Amino acid sequence: MSEKRPTIYDVARVAGVSRSLVSLVLRGSDKVSDASREAVETAIAELGYRPSRAASELASGRTETIAVLIDDYANTWFVDLLRGLEGELARDGYRVSVVDTAGATDTEALRRSVDALLSLRADAIVVARDLPPSLTGRTLTTAVAPPLVVAGTRLDMPEGVDGVANDDAAGARLVAEHLLALGHRRIGHLAVAGGAGAARRASFVAAVAAGGGEVIVVEHDGAATEAEGRAAALGLLRAHPELTAVFGANDLMAIGVLGAARELGIRVPEQLSVAGYDSTEIAASGVIDLTTVDDRSYDMGVEVGRMVRDLVGGRPAAGERRVLEPTLIPRGTTGPARRL
Amino acid sequence: MSEKRPTIYDVARVAGVSRSLVSLVLRGSDKVSDASREAVETAIAELGYRPSRAASELASGRTETIAVLIDDYANTWFVDLLRGLEGELARDGYRVSVVDTAGATDTEALRRSVDALLSLRADAIVVARDLPPSLTGRTLTTAVAPPLVVAGTRLDMPEGVDGVANDDAAGARLVAEHLLALGHRRIGHLAVAGGAGAARRASFVAAVAAGGGEVIVVEHDGAATEAEGRAAALGLLRAHPELTAVFGANDLMAIGVLGAARELGIRVPEQLSVAGYDSTEIAASGVIDLTTVDDRSYDMGVEVGRMVRDLVGGRPAAGERRVLEPTLIPRGTTGPARRL
Repeated sequence: MSEKRPTIYDVARVAGVSRSLVSLVLRGSDKVSDASREAVETAIAELGYRPSRAASELASGRTETIAVLIDDYANTWFVDLLRGLEGELARDGYRVSVVDTAGATDTEALRRSVDALLSLRADAIVVARDLPPSLTGRTLTTAVAPPLVVAGTRLDMPEGVDGVANDDAAGARLVAEHLLALGHRRIGHLAVAGGAGAARRASFVAAVAAGGGEVIVVEHDGAATEAEGRAAALGLLRAHPELTAVFGANDLMAIGVLGAARELGIRVPEQLSVAGYDSTEIAASGVIDLTTVDDRSYDMGVEVGRMVRDLVGGRPAAGERRVLEPTLIPRGTTGPARRL
Repeated sequence: MSEKRPTIYDVARVAGVSRSLVSLVLRGSDKVSDASREAVETAIAELGYRPSRAASELASGRTETIAVLIDDYANTWFVDLLRGLEGELARDGYRVSVVDTAGATDTEALRRSVDALLSLRADAIVVARDLPPSLTGRTLTTAVAPPLVVAGTRLDMPEGVDGVANDDAAGARLVAEHLLALGHRRIGHLAVAGGAGAARRASFVAAVAAGGGEVIVVEHDGAATEAEGRAAALGLLRAHPELTAVFGANDLMAIGVLGAARELGIRVPEQLSVAGYDSTEIAASGVIDLTTVDDRSYDMGVEVGRMVRDLVGGRPAAGERRVLEPTLIPRGTTGPARRL
């Protein structure tokens, strides 16, 4: 750290232009000739100059970073959330950084992940997973922590925290109605832990029952991965050959069901219909083509971004909860129930 | 920020224990009774106390965060890299945070992503994508930036920067030899931009030619996504019905080929063999079951972690390049070439 940090004056000198012209280039002005812009950019690269963001951060106490806590990088439902958040906040100059908790198997490990999140000194924190109340609670919302927005349906949300979620109960009901309309009455469900999982399960079971059907629920407390979905589905389909459809609590679990069906020689959708939740990119791939629920992750990200802007701007947290309506995306993995 | 930050003494007072007992709990000691631990944890939650990491960071100038720059959260090859990095550095107390560049379509946008990375004030930076020399170069390696390690085969790596990669040329050769041994001679390749993509393509084309075959290469400059792979494969398979195999430059592109084949009514592997690269979790799913190359991402993460430890510990950057041997993972998407 002993080398002198280059300044905007150094850049101007090396580029042979005025300091104000360097400033214009840094602000992305279109009033700069290509030649001057190039000279400035070359000088910036040569000097290793970094625009004064760091200095202004030190002065303002802002990092212009939004830190997002997610479950697991391998479960890509969060990607659209980030895209929406980035899209909404790009013009404010915010950048987004992510910390995951896939390796955190107990509260202490989760606390370390939350520490990692806080150590980023972000201007706001977005929590997109369930957390024990001791962590979502005062640890995050105390005066030493930045503003917090919760994304998704989460258990034990402390009062006063703002959040955006899709209506998981409504989404699961859409799946139930879709399967009932196709004639399915004996349906499996791979449930997952957490607020979204609980809402989906309760609503799905109730809606299928209201339509005269019955749901066999497999509880699952661990990570909601493809491998777990596959293992759970193998057990379920072997024990319940009467099932004509399975609803996985998220796309990864549902993709696991597709793998299990293939392993057991069960054709999808002729012999078994399969649906997921989240509308991930991989679910839309031609080879998977999974019926799923669009949980409006992108729009959720946009709404989270608006809340972040308000909170950073000084609006006190108000416990506002915005809810987005999900939609069903019927694809090739669901079809009419086979005759038993 | 006006509220007084709670201290370890406040925690001890509220929990009704000594300060040194709080300290033991914070260090995870097993010499503390469950009752005391619970009292301390309750007090920590109530007060919103955060262990003195932030304070010690301010004193030491360290954040104990490693910041990783990746291409795109949706391309999950990086997940194993992070797991290896986290595994290696967990005992040092480091945490990992990620910034992606999927939205960065020009150098200026990339520069903003690099700014985001630098603004995390991480103790070290890991770059796991290609960057223009002006960004990987002095912008990152100047004295104001933290130590840098490059992960993966990257173009234009500045001299003196340390890095770890798998041997992409060797990996592509393994795919070529596998397909040649299965009798394939007319093979398509969906290439991607960047250092790893270039190495894979050149080696694949040479190895197939050496075995008496021929490769039709489709160049692709954009994002290496499933959708792009599918679109490219649709064009390729329509224009070249004589192809009996396609090698996608990564798993996502290869999954796109599987989707294209399905759309065209081409059976895999009976009529078309498909291979990818990266050994992602989704490629291993039962429903995709993709032949791929294990690029040793987890081990790469471990090696990156070791380099990070050395560099943070004071070893000067030495331009060291460690190379890991990839292995082929044959699965259900490759089989004997059909007779034409």
